[in-house]
Order: sequence, then structure tokens, then C-alpha cells
Amino acid sequence: MLSWVDGHPAELLSVTDRGLAYGDGLFETLAVSGGTPRLLDRHLARLADGCARLQLPFDVVTLRGELLAFSRQLGEGVAKLILTRGDGLRGYAPPQPALARRILLGSAKPDYPRQHAELGVRLFSCATRLAEQPLLAGLKHLNRLEQVLARGEWQDAEHAEGLMRDGAGRVIEGVFSNLFICKGGALLTPDLSRCGVAGVMRAELLVQADALGVRCEVRDIALGELLSADEVFLCNSLYGVWPVRALLERDWSVGPLTRKLQAIARDLLDC
Amino acid sequence: MLSWVDGHPAELLSVTDRGLAYGDGLFETLAVSGGTPRLLDRHLARLADGCARLQLPFDVVTLRGELLAFSRQLGEGVAKLILTRGDGLRGYAPPQPALARRILLGSAKPDYPRQHAELGVRLFSCATRLAEQPLLAGLKHLNRLEQVLARGEWQDAEHAEGLMRDGAGRVIEGVFSNLFICKGGALLTPDLSRCGVAGVMRAELLVQADALGVRCEVRDIALGELLSADEVFLCNSLYGVWPVRALLERDWSVGPLTRKLQAIARDLLDC
Repeated sequence: MLSWVDGHPAELLSVTDRGLAYGDGLFETLAVSGGTPRLLDRHLARLADGCARLQLPFDVVTLRGELLAFSRQLGEGVAKLILTRGDGLRGYAPPQPALARRILLGSAKPDYPRQHAELGVRLFSCATRLAEQPLLAGLKHLNRLEQVLARGEWQDAEHAEGLMRDGAGRVIEGVFSNLFICKGGALLTPDLSRCGVAGVMRAELLVQADALGVRCEVRDIALGELLSADEVFLCNSLYGVWPVRALLERDWSVGPLTRKLQAIARDLLDC
Repeated sequence: MLSWVDGHPAELLSVTDRGLAYGDGLFETLAVSGGTPRLLDRHLARLADGCARLQLPFDVVTLRGELLAFSRQLGEGVAKLILTRGDGLRGYAPPQPALARRILLGSAKPDYPRQHAELGVRLFSCATRLAEQPLLAGLKHLNRLEQVLARGEWQDAEHAEGLMRDGAGRVIEGVFSNLFICKGGALLTPDLSRCGVAGVMRAELLVQADALGVRCEVRDIALGELLSADEVFLCNSLYGVWPVRALLERDWSVGPLTRKLQAIARDLLDC
């Protein structure tokens, strides 16, 4: 396995790392194609936002250089970047000053069935609800027990992803994807100011749809509104776009806006 | 530093550990005195509860033996135990079957000023609120960014601990302590079914107070009720009991029930 810690090949990490102790850090998973990390600027922008909100300083020039060099070496696959607040033996108080520790892990492209993209996926309805925490909402931080619990709810291959809602029942996202619905020609995606991960592909698709002249709205979405949508799809920065073809008692066929944005995502990811 | 991974001396861990990736695990911090871990059965009971709720199997006989052997070698100090779901390169789905990985870290007793126990502490009022997540409430899991943010709110030595409340403003706990109030002869501590960590010392003090004939209540507590309490104190399994002498505009002197339970905690921890 290809893995680097602070720019050097390493497969091991100190047991006192605060990423392990408290989930005190952030991560990104980048598609790598032809030795190049895809959507790099968007990933770095989200990371910068997360680091600012967690008061975790990082050196963006070093990090960018490392991501480029790592991706060249990886060639094809996924580069997972983890930033942590470094070592700390005990106590929550953040060490001052702390420069983020950089961990890079390479892996092969996930082998999702082609039908997921072509025919669409069936969504599992997760019982695990996302807690509302505005201080962490939107961030791709290392506190991901809710996703672990939600993903543990189903084992069958029939469901490719799960729908997560918040405590009030609002639709938020997939376990490892963001969610969009199309309704009367407009594109809608849930507001993520209380919980959820603001995905890089979600941000990109909002810009792309707007450029196509599609009206875009980011706001609260109830389950009923999702179930009455014309089209539903998921996205992330690895697989691009998956149409949703079934959830609970509802079935959808793959719609034209979904296909249009799927083609754009495919180009962006070169997949 | 004394540290073991799965029973063997080790200071390093695989970068693919799910404790790092997702905070997918639990921890305990045990006071060690005279080569013996204090409140061991209570720590193991909480861990068993946490492992059952996270569906993380662990071998309690092996773990107990390791904790005893580790404590003998440590002599005096703190044994921090971290259980994680082991390795996983990518994806939230819990590997099946996964036996918990055991990480033990030894450190010296924390050097809290003696005045904290003798004269009491001033509580900082944290702006960081605890999110409500019943699926994780009570557990000492590795998703602790809320505590990191809260502890980062103050740097002065005047405040020894911070008060954390939930989104609705209810009093929950300290950043690294549980909280009790005494009111009209009764002992009250917040209900932790929505958020918070159900501390080992909290559980022990509830039993001890009951044995003293003190009426105990576990229920929601508003800030106003805390501020109008006769006595307020904090507890955890390392320092025992700290009286609270000030919060916001309110001052307290150290009360008799606080002193009684403090003496009991001191005996239990041999500190």
C-alpha cells in the first residue's frame, strides 16, 4: 500500500496522535486519474475552511505539492488525505502551536458495479439520524460514528447507499454521498448548516447546473418532497453521479437533468 | 512512554486504523495507584455497554488481564485504554467479524493544583453546545471534537473546567467531568440519554450517596436550577471530586455533601 506521513513513506503512526484519540482532524478522498488528483482546488478549499473552523493551521503549499507528487506515484485510484492535530498524550486542550500532521493513503478505484451509474441505485432508509451540530456541520471531519452506525444497518447488495435524515426527519444526505432532487425543472439539495458533509462534487454540480441555466436551491427538504420529486440522484467525488431508482415504496426512472450532470461529473473525474 | 498494542509493547499503529479514520472506537482513562487500576469493574462495565451499542466485539478476559499487567508495570499514573474496530482502508461499513484492537497508553498522574480539590474551581461557561445523539449518548467514544472545541475556548489558568450545555441550553457536564448539584438535601445530576459521557465516578457516587441515605435524582437540569443550587461539584475517575466555587455571577462555598463524597472518591482512587 502506498502511504505517506508528513511527506515520507510510512505505514505507521504514533499511538498518541489526536486523530486517533479524539477524531481531531479532517479528511478528503480524491479521485486520481492519469496521475492527477481530480477537483484538487475544491478539495483544498474545503480543507482550508475546515482547518479555519477547527483552528488547525496547515501549510497549503506543502500539502498541494505532496498531493500532486503522491498522485503521480499512485497513477490511478483514490488518494485519501487525513489531517490531524498531531500528538497529544492526554487532555482535550489543543496544543499551541499545532501544525497539522499529513497522512496520505493510496488505494485502487472502488469497484462499484457499472449498473449503479447506468440504471440507478436503490436507497436504504437509515434509522440512524444525524445530530444537529452547526459548529461541525459541512465539515469532512474525523468524527464519523454516525456514518459507521448507519452503514452497519444494511448488509445486502440490493441497496448501494443509505438515506440519512436529521433528528427532525429532514432529508440530509447519503452515508457517503450528497443528494439532489429535481422538481419542476429546478435542482434542489439539502441545506447543510446543521449537519451533513458539504461534498466537493455537490459544490461543483451546483455551479455547473447554474451555468446550464438550471435554477438551484439549497434549503430544507422533507421526506415527502423527496418522494414526490421528478428525479433524484446522489453524488460524490469518486463515483460522480448515481441516479436513485428506488426508495421506500417509490420508483423513479433516470431523468434528463440527472444524465446531463452525470456526464459532466464523468468528465471532471475522467471516469 | 509505556504503551502496548494488542498486548505487546508498541508506540506505533497502522495508518489504516478505523479509530483514526472515523473515531470508530471507545476509550477509558483509569487511575492507577500502587500498581492497581482503580474502579476497574466499572470501567469494564461501561466499555462492555459501549461495545454492545457499537457492535464492537471484545474479549473481556484478555482485556482485564492486560489492564492488570499494564498497571503493575506502570505503578502510579493513568492508564488510557483505546479500543478501535481495527484496520479498514476505506468505506464506513464495519468489517465482519472485527475483534477490537486494544491500545494502552501510560502516563504520569495529572498535576492538578491541590487547591482545585481543597478550595474548589471556577467553571468557564462554554459556548460550544453538545449535539443530541441518543445513539451515542453516555458512551466514551472517540468522536470528541465537541470537547476539543469547548476546551479551546479558554486558555487562562483561572478556569479549571468548562460547563457544557446542550442545544436547548440544559446543563449536561464539564468538558472532562460530570456535574452534580445539591439542593434541599438531595443530589441531582443531569440525564445523559441525549448527549454527554456517563462517567464511571458519576455512577459510583450515585451508589455511594444512595447508601448514605441521600435522595438522588437523574434528570434534566436548567442553568437557573444549577445557579440556585446549594452545592455544586464535578467528578471524574482521575481527580475524584472538585467543588465548584464560581460560575458566571454566582459564588459557592464548599458544602458538606460535597466534602463527604470527595472523601469517598479519594478513598476509591487512593489519591
